[in-house]
Amino acid sequence: MKQYCVTIAREFGSGGRLIGRRLAEELGIDFYDRELIALAAAETGFAEDYIGEVENEKTSRLCFGPYAHNFPIVTAFNTGQSVSAQEQVFLAQSAIIRRLAAEKSCVIVGRSADYVLRDKICCAHVFIHAPLEYRVRFAQEHYGETRSDLDAYIKRQDKRRSNYCRYFTQRKWGASHNYHLCLDSSVGLDSSVRILENFAREFLRRLS
Amino acid sequence: MKQYCVTIAREFGSGGRLIGRRLAEELGIDFYDRELIALAAAETGFAEDYIGEVENEKTSRLCFGPYAHNFPIVTAFNTGQSVSAQEQVFLAQSAIIRRLAAEKSCVIVGRSADYVLRDKICCAHVFIHAPLEYRVRFAQEHYGETRSDLDAYIKRQDKRRSNYCRYFTQRKWGASHNYHLCLDSSVGLDSSVRILENFAREFLRRLS
Repeated sequence: MKQYCVTIAREFGSGGRLIGRRLAEELGIDFYDRELIALAAAETGFAEDYIGEVENEKTSRLCFGPYAHNFPIVTAFNTGQSVSAQEQVFLAQSAIIRRLAAEKSCVIVGRSADYVLRDKICCAHVFIHAPLEYRVRFAQEHYGETRSDLDAYIKRQDKRRSNYCRYFTQRKWGASHNYHLCLDSSVGLDSSVRILENFAREFLRRLS
Repeated sequence: MKQYCVTIAREFGSGGRLIGRRLAEELGIDFYDRELIALAAAETGFAEDYIGEVENEKTSRLCFGPYAHNFPIVTAFNTGQSVSAQEQVFLAQSAIIRRLAAEKSCVIVGRSADYVLRDKICCAHVFIHAPLEYRVRFAQEHYGETRSDLDAYIKRQDKRRSNYCRYFTQRKWGASHNYHLCLDSSVGLDSSVRILENFAREFLRRLS
């Protein structure tokens, strides 16, 4: 079987990470989500906790990052412009994502991996979303969320991810054209995994 | 098995209609696309050819139709406002779509059926898209298109569908949140049918 990669972008509370992990198990390939933080720590010299914080920093809603089209990482550092910690982390993670996709079959969650790997024909790009009420319930049941303003919190998390995507990729987060498959995960966790597994196997046929 | 309905919105040249027809065959349920024109002709008294023309009329890019939230059809005609032929056809087709979905399991292509049936939990809503170069090739191979400006023609058709959707439903055509599944059909015709069949069967599990 050919080497391939599935990237998953996801709304907060849609279960995208859990679905991605189970998908990787079903496909028998590696899974990367928070694992990318440890790899980026080794690459940048930042502490893992610091990278976690930096990833959650706000990005401007109104402007694009200066490095969106400046791959690979080396190019960005050669421009002579100052690079924020968030930009350094993004660039390091992008380099890691490209390396991983070149080395092995895997599922990668988040970090705009769909954009980073946009030109790789062996990569299938997925977006997972769900109605807000489903995501509130899912976050309570699966992440133990108890905050009273959970729906507002979820909206803020989506906004942050959307701005991050826009800043670093100049793309609209969740726009169907940027993905091979967009799925409403309120069809259920098990069904979502099976739908994606079937999709991944059909996608693979094209490569063989 | 429960009664259910799959609606398919699609970009021009994505193969959505062919995929929908084959999906209906695989699922063993009825298929409605141009069949809706004959039914609307009977409902409105317009000739079928005229309905075909009216459906292809331009809708304004800048404003919403006055009846987007005035279902059922009877309500619209009771407002006392003048109703264009395009609006009459939309309202008649909407009533037919609701009746069909209440009567039988089926696949319905186009006519903003996803919006018309948005509150029906037994309805799965699908959007089919593909890169422009794939759609140009698909239209040449499957619809016998020979025009030299085919890519511009395809863009105009998409624009018309997008404006129609916006006018009658106040929704953004192809926005992932309006559909349970969005699929890039460049994965291939056969694969697209299998992906949708698998999705439809998983969707049905939720209903049982």
